[in-house]
Amino acid sequence: MSIPDSSKIQAEVLIQALPYIQRWSGAIFVVKYGGAAMGGDGYAAQVMQDLVLMHCVGIRPVLVHGGGPEISELMKRVGKTPQFVDGLRVTDAETMELVEMALTGKTNPRLVALIQQQGGRAVGLSGKDGNLIRARKLQAEVDLGFVGEVEQINPEVVRNALAGGYIPVISPVGLGADGATYNLNADFAAGALAGALKAEKFILMTDVPGVLSDPDDPQSLISELSREQAQRMLDNGRVSGGMIPKLQACLSALEQGCPRAHIIDGRIPHALLIEVFTDAGIGTMIR
Amino acid sequence: MSIPDSSKIQAEVLIQALPYIQRWSGAIFVVKYGGAAMGGDGYAAQVMQDLVLMHCVGIRPVLVHGGGPEISELMKRVGKTPQFVDGLRVTDAETMELVEMALTGKTNPRLVALIQQQGGRAVGLSGKDGNLIRARKLQAEVDLGFVGEVEQINPEVVRNALAGGYIPVISPVGLGADGATYNLNADFAAGALAGALKAEKFILMTDVPGVLSDPDDPQSLISELSREQAQRMLDNGRVSGGMIPKLQACLSALEQGCPRAHIIDGRIPHALLIEVFTDAGIGTMIR
Amino acid sequence: MSIPDSSKIQAEVLIQALPYIQRWSGAIFVVKYGGAAMGGDGYAAQVMQDLVLMHCVGIRPVLVHGGGPEISELMKRVGKTPQFVDGLRVTDAETMELVEMALTGKTNPRLVALIQQQGGRAVGLSGKDGNLIRARKLQAEVDLGFVGEVEQINPEVVRNALAGGYIPVISPVGLGADGATYNLNADFAAGALAGALKAEKFILMTDVPGVLSDPDDPQSLISELSREQAQRMLDNGRVSGGMIPKLQACLSALEQGCPRAHIIDGRIPHALLIEVFTDAGIGTMIR
Amino acid sequence: MSIPDSSKIQAEVLIQALPYIQRWSGAIFVVKYGGAAMGGDGYAAQVMQDLVLMHCVGIRPVLVHGGGPEISELMKRVGKTPQFVDGLRVTDAETMELVEMALTGKTNPRLVALIQQQGGRAVGLSGKDGNLIRARKLQAEVDLGFVGEVEQINPEVVRNALAGGYIPVISPVGLGADGATYNLNADFAAGALAGALKAEKFILMTDVPGVLSDPDDPQSLISELSREQAQRMLDNGRVSGGMIPKLQACLSALEQGCPRAHIIDGRIPHALLIEVFTDAGIGTMIR
Amino acid sequence: MSIPDSSKIQAEVLIQALPYIQRWSGAIFVVKYGGAAMGGDGYAAQVMQDLVLMHCVGIRPVLVHGGGPEISELMKRVGKTPQFVDGLRVTDAETMELVEMALTGKTNPRLVALIQQQGGRAVGLSGKDGNLIRARKLQAEVDLGFVGEVEQINPEVVRNALAGGYIPVISPVGLGADGATYNLNADFAAGALAGALKAEKFILMTDVPGVLSDPDDPQSLISELSREQAQRMLDNGRVSGGMIPKLQACLSALEQGCPRAHIIDGRIPHALLIEVFTDAGIGTMIR
Amino acid sequence: MSIPDSSKIQAEVLIQALPYIQRWSGAIFVVKYGGAAMGGDGYAAQVMQDLVLMHCVGIRPVLVHGGGPEISELMKRVGKTPQFVDGLRVTDAETMELVEMALTGKTNPRLVALIQQQGGRAVGLSGKDGNLIRARKLQAEVDLGFVGEVEQINPEVVRNALAGGYIPVISPVGLGADGATYNLNADFAAGALAGALKAEKFILMTDVPGVLSDPDDPQSLISELSREQAQRMLDNGRVSGGMIPKLQACLSALEQGCPRAHIIDGRIPHALLIEVFTDAGIGTMIR
Repeated sequence: MSIPDSSKIQAEVLIQALPYIQRWSGAIFVVKYGGAAMGGDGYAAQVMQDLVLMHCVGIRPVLVHGGGPEISELMKRVGKTPQFVDGLRVTDAETMELVEMALTGKTNPRLVALIQQQGGRAVGLSGKDGNLIRARKLQAEVDLGFVGEVEQINPEVVRNALAGGYIPVISPVGLGADGATYNLNADFAAGALAGALKAEKFILMTDVPGVLSDPDDPQSLISELSREQAQRMLDNGRVSGGMIPKLQACLSALEQGCPRAHIIDGRIPHALLIEVFTDAGIGTMIR
Repeated sequence: MSIPDSSKIQAEVLIQALPYIQRWSGAIFVVKYGGAAMGGDGYAAQVMQDLVLMHCVGIRPVLVHGGGPEISELMKRVGKTPQFVDGLRVTDAETMELVEMALTGKTNPRLVALIQQQGGRAVGLSGKDGNLIRARKLQAEVDLGFVGEVEQINPEVVRNALAGGYIPVISPVGLGADGATYNLNADFAAGALAGALKAEKFILMTDVPGVLSDPDDPQSLISELSREQAQRMLDNGRVSGGMIPKLQACLSALEQGCPRAHIIDGRIPHALLIEVFTDAGIGTMIR
Repeated sequence: MSIPDSSKIQAEVLIQALPYIQRWSGAIFVVKYGGAAMGGDGYAAQVMQDLVLMHCVGIRPVLVHGGGPEISELMKRVGKTPQFVDGLRVTDAETMELVEMALTGKTNPRLVALIQQQGGRAVGLSGKDGNLIRARKLQAEVDLGFVGEVEQINPEVVRNALAGGYIPVISPVGLGADGATYNLNADFAAGALAGALKAEKFILMTDVPGVLSDPDDPQSLISELSREQAQRMLDNGRVSGGMIPKLQACLSALEQGCPRAHIIDGRIPHALLIEVFTDAGIGTMIR
Repeated sequence: MSIPDSSKIQAEVLIQALPYIQRWSGAIFVVKYGGAAMGGDGYAAQVMQDLVLMHCVGIRPVLVHGGGPEISELMKRVGKTPQFVDGLRVTDAETMELVEMALTGKTNPRLVALIQQQGGRAVGLSGKDGNLIRARKLQAEVDLGFVGEVEQINPEVVRNALAGGYIPVISPVGLGADGATYNLNADFAAGALAGALKAEKFILMTDVPGVLSDPDDPQSLISELSREQAQRMLDNGRVSGGMIPKLQACLSALEQGCPRAHIIDGRIPHALLIEVFTDAGIGTMIR
Repeated sequence: MSIPDSSKIQAEVLIQALPYIQRWSGAIFVVKYGGAAMGGDGYAAQVMQDLVLMHCVGIRPVLVHGGGPEISELMKRVGKTPQFVDGLRVTDAETMELVEMALTGKTNPRLVALIQQQGGRAVGLSGKDGNLIRARKLQAEVDLGFVGEVEQINPEVVRNALAGGYIPVISPVGLGADGATYNLNADFAAGALAGALKAEKFILMTDVPGVLSDPDDPQSLISELSREQAQRMLDNGRVSGGMIPKLQACLSALEQGCPRAHIIDGRIPHALLIEVFTDAGIGTMIR
Repeated sequence: MSIPDSSKIQAEVLIQALPYIQRWSGAIFVVKYGGAAMGGDGYAAQVMQDLVLMHCVGIRPVLVHGGGPEISELMKRVGKTPQFVDGLRVTDAETMELVEMALTGKTNPRLVALIQQQGGRAVGLSGKDGNLIRARKLQAEVDLGFVGEVEQINPEVVRNALAGGYIPVISPVGLGADGATYNLNADFAAGALAGALKAEKFILMTDVPGVLSDPDDPQSLISELSREQAQRMLDNGRVSGGMIPKLQACLSALEQGCPRAHIIDGRIPHALLIEVFTDAGIGTMIR
């Protein structure tokens, strides 16, 4: 009888993952996935598979998703033109309805279904469920309508889902004290949730390799930053564009007690598994 | 000092409700609400208030909603014309996406928010969450696309929400073994759920007074039917139109072990409270 | 079909009670009922009904009763003349036996039975059970015999009854370290218990409207007093007679951590429900 | 250093008790104590001490007491003459009040206090508490008034007390569906309770050595009887007087699933301990 | 930034293991390891690592070990010559002491220590602990002394260790009703334990590839056998030597409710992982 | 019928033990037994019986044993001569193997079996199980080889055994961070465990009457010592020989939060019971 080499390699690899599995057993990881990094269905399936695997070996992942493309697509279908100010979507009442339908009614159940096709158990939640995310109107120079910011996180509904053995999948809308629904930045919502849950890791999946010392040079990745260094980069304007809110979301998670935040390149296949279960450095870790 | 008469009456009324509160303590009630009976926001708020009150006095309500008007409205906004065959919406892939966005992304969070504005705790679920509703394609004479029927109910995700102290609010879509999403008749989905949960009551809110012996005479309400009588009315063609699937949904709940099904007039203010907490007969009870 | 107006009113009233039911869910209320306010059986049944209703909607009531009339009646039947010094019953050994028989053997089971006839579940306890009330001889100018005062409350036996889903009904006798049984003032015993249980409310039912600014004018009811104001009224002699120990019992409950004490008129039908579930002010609240 | 012989003997004796302690760990024993066997306070204290010891080594004793002498004494004090028909007390409404006051208000708290003076934790219950004993009027040739018989046992309130770590002490009165209180034979009430609790032993303490083959010869004690033998002795009239209801109570306990009933001589110091923890046969065992 | 290929492969391999991890989550596997298959310390460490990994991903492994070489070595050191009859060690009283010292005092703690060096949590048990294995003298043609066979398994002590999160490591000695200690065949002890625990798998690690259709041809491995086929091979004498008791142990586990038994080649590195987590067939499965 | 006097005495004795049983209910006692005090099998059986009795009445005993004679005997059998320096066994690698086999493979299972023959439930543990005792090499003037000292106690595995209702029996070996096994002084190991478990008592069984004020006069027993007095006796050299480490072990237990340490004469039959359940002073108590 001969054992195929592939099986021998498989066994070796599992053994190499053992210390990571032991280390993260029982830990909560909040993963932000979405936006440009989201890709097509095949791609999303791969990310969901990673979550299912993490769940199987004892990690408790919580997924927060974005959904910009779906929102814009639905707007176009009803004949509205998406408008942005400083990267924020101008959200009148009608747009807010479309935002919620796209996020909670399309992206969210799509991800839930993908997790379940991998044999996982997921439950879709919106930030409204169980008053998970209390929001308020974001004060900006121009009136952005129903663009909100997180006021308070009530994580019981997420804890209840985790205790029941489910992977919570969360759409980033929130309910205001005024009864209105607000459109939230998914990075910030996920960071606040990571803080409120005292997650062991907050993992932000993006479409860049991580924080770069030279934004034009993808080879200039910074593997690790302290909170102070990250803050200084923000203060000195050494990061720009979409990376600014991402770094801010990471810092906010760290401030509230989540010890590690990661910005990783979601375009790499199984980026999550590589980050969590292998020796290979991937993306930027802030702590 | 003088106690206002209104307070005295309030005390009396509470005492009159006592036997009903005692009787239904801990019971699960599955309530179907929606469609034409759904009305505007003020009206829905009243129904949600009734659910919150029931929850407060120890009943465990589970809400299944429809959302026909929201679906049709969204279809119109994207320029599609709703088409029906025998009361069933022809649902191509594009329509299915719109159905799900309207149900899971609009009606569902609206009801969740209303419950929470009344001080209740709700969690929105779709039939996909935790594989709650396994569906399959409905076999009909013409191909209706993604119109499905319930294959199996996995009620754990609902039980987990109830155990956490939440009112589950459920949108009637289901996941097929083929990975496709199906549009389900909300009455049937609710009836199947009432059966699977062994609910004490299945309450179907409609826009008619109940089952009538003479469909043209609203005064001819039948207060109570046995399962046999209900079946015979169906067999003899003595019910027609929208009442047929409603009676069928009731019978299906009864067959699976739910002891009482009610078809009540959702247009009556606080119809649920009147049905549950007062001596007044309302609608038709089948058992 | 027509819904009777009474049913509509009932539904409205239930909805008006909702905020109160939500607010007090899970709270412990210690109710002192007895003495002159106790009235006949029909009356007591009404008070017990109020307790059962409170229990049904999630409040955890604890009843402490007096029993002066029953004690005096039993004394007369055995040919003893009740004697009082400053409102306190002179209690020799023989009288103490009669006191205990009347309280623990007559009033207590009568109230337990009434609760159960309303569909509630009650358990009668005396202050001796589980060493609930450790007592000591009250030091007074004249020897009052076995008149005692509370030394220590061991509330475990009450908590065990509450956890089992029972309404505890408590007779105010206590056990001394000397093995003797002591006759306790029910107001003080109830106040001490409210403090030890950290009850949300201590409700003292009496036969007056509450604290009056002019004792001769029943219209001069004071709706609310701070602890300081109540103490000052006691210090300044602005309350007199039976109201003095009642105010003292309230202050003692407040000192030990019960946030609200109420002196209400037990002669008003369903006074408890009016106090707890309606907007109407009733009696005097001290906090 | 020298160890006193008494200590050595103590150690030996404890070791001899070990197999019995092991055998009965966790078992429920229902003990009937009272009537003529009850004796004075010093004596009762000894019996209570035995219960406390049993409780300490893991047995769960439940005490049902009688109280004939206390009842008759109270009746005499109020000027009523006890009347008996076939050993049953004629119980008019006024007498019933006195019966309950004596049992629930005097004997019961006396035993509770004695247990607690021995360092045990007891809770006094009457058959009314938690509807423990549902009773109905005993049908006899002459109207005995409020003499009742057991209709149903609802042992939850006893189980709740046991689960809380208390020794339940129970007075044998019951509540009828008619709302009336009934005076019950304590032997029968205890036997029914032993059956309902599936007690491992039902121990009836009396003032005779046990069942005698010759009623006039105290040396003719029968150590063990099968159920059939006991039934035959009743059928053949070979037992008489007070032993008849005692044997009947034993048989009723056995029929409902309690495997062993004992009739023992309560006048022997520490009779319970001798029965339970030593090799010496004592009284009559029926099984 | 470039991700090393090794990391990509690792991620792929983890994903390939996912279905197996999902399938066996929560399952009990009884693994017999020892004898000739045991090898040196480095080798044993690898097997223990496999157990730790299985434990980490939710499997509950139970290890039963042999220890022939250690026994023989100790015997030699004290000057005794091991004697065997039909493969069974003749075990006089002195030998039994040496057997137990070698198994329970050397092999067992060595394996426990190895598991813990891999970051696992293990607890060593002997078949005597908690009366885990009740044994009796094996009846054979010649008197083999203290060679025993399993009479009864009391698996509570193993379940307690599993519930505490430990990997139980068990030495195959048993206690007789006669108070004597017996030397047990580890294969049989493990099989009986697998049956008593209703393990999902019983895995017997040996130093041959599995069951061979031609004992002289290692290429003639039979991948799968039904119970009937295995029984027939035994009946027909188509297996011989050490394989006979192994097949018998497997059949005994299957008879008692363990659905799958495996005979695998312990010499293959990470044979357990290959068997459990990969598609590659390894050894012989009987079911 | 006549009750034998012996039974009456038995009952009396049990009653005298009651206050002690009440006092120590639920308490953890760590008992060190072994070495010279260990005696033959009959004697050990008696000590185990005492542990079983304590367990039965609600105490949670934990046994730590020595095994010097067994170790020396095994060494002799393999032809090695035990060597001691300052009372410590010189332990080369080969000796360490023999030590572990004797302790964990012979003494430990012998005591486990004896407990079970008395009807108790025991589980044998070594200091390696669950990393119970982390050890390190003892630094001494001469190299003693694998003689270790306690570095850290991880009592979870003991708590898990206690929670499962077992008497843990522990052999004093420990695992080093270097992977080596160390031979520990059983007195110190037991004292450290008593401290880590916050045991109510640490009882050291020896073969002397206790601490003597005049080591040559067995009548000069000191019944009680404060920690300060014990420390002073050590400092002043007023204790010598084997008593020094015993007193040190006691002091170490007291320092870590165990309130009472006892040095008692294990040669007295049922010394444990006399110490725990009778008024007789025995040995020396330090607190």
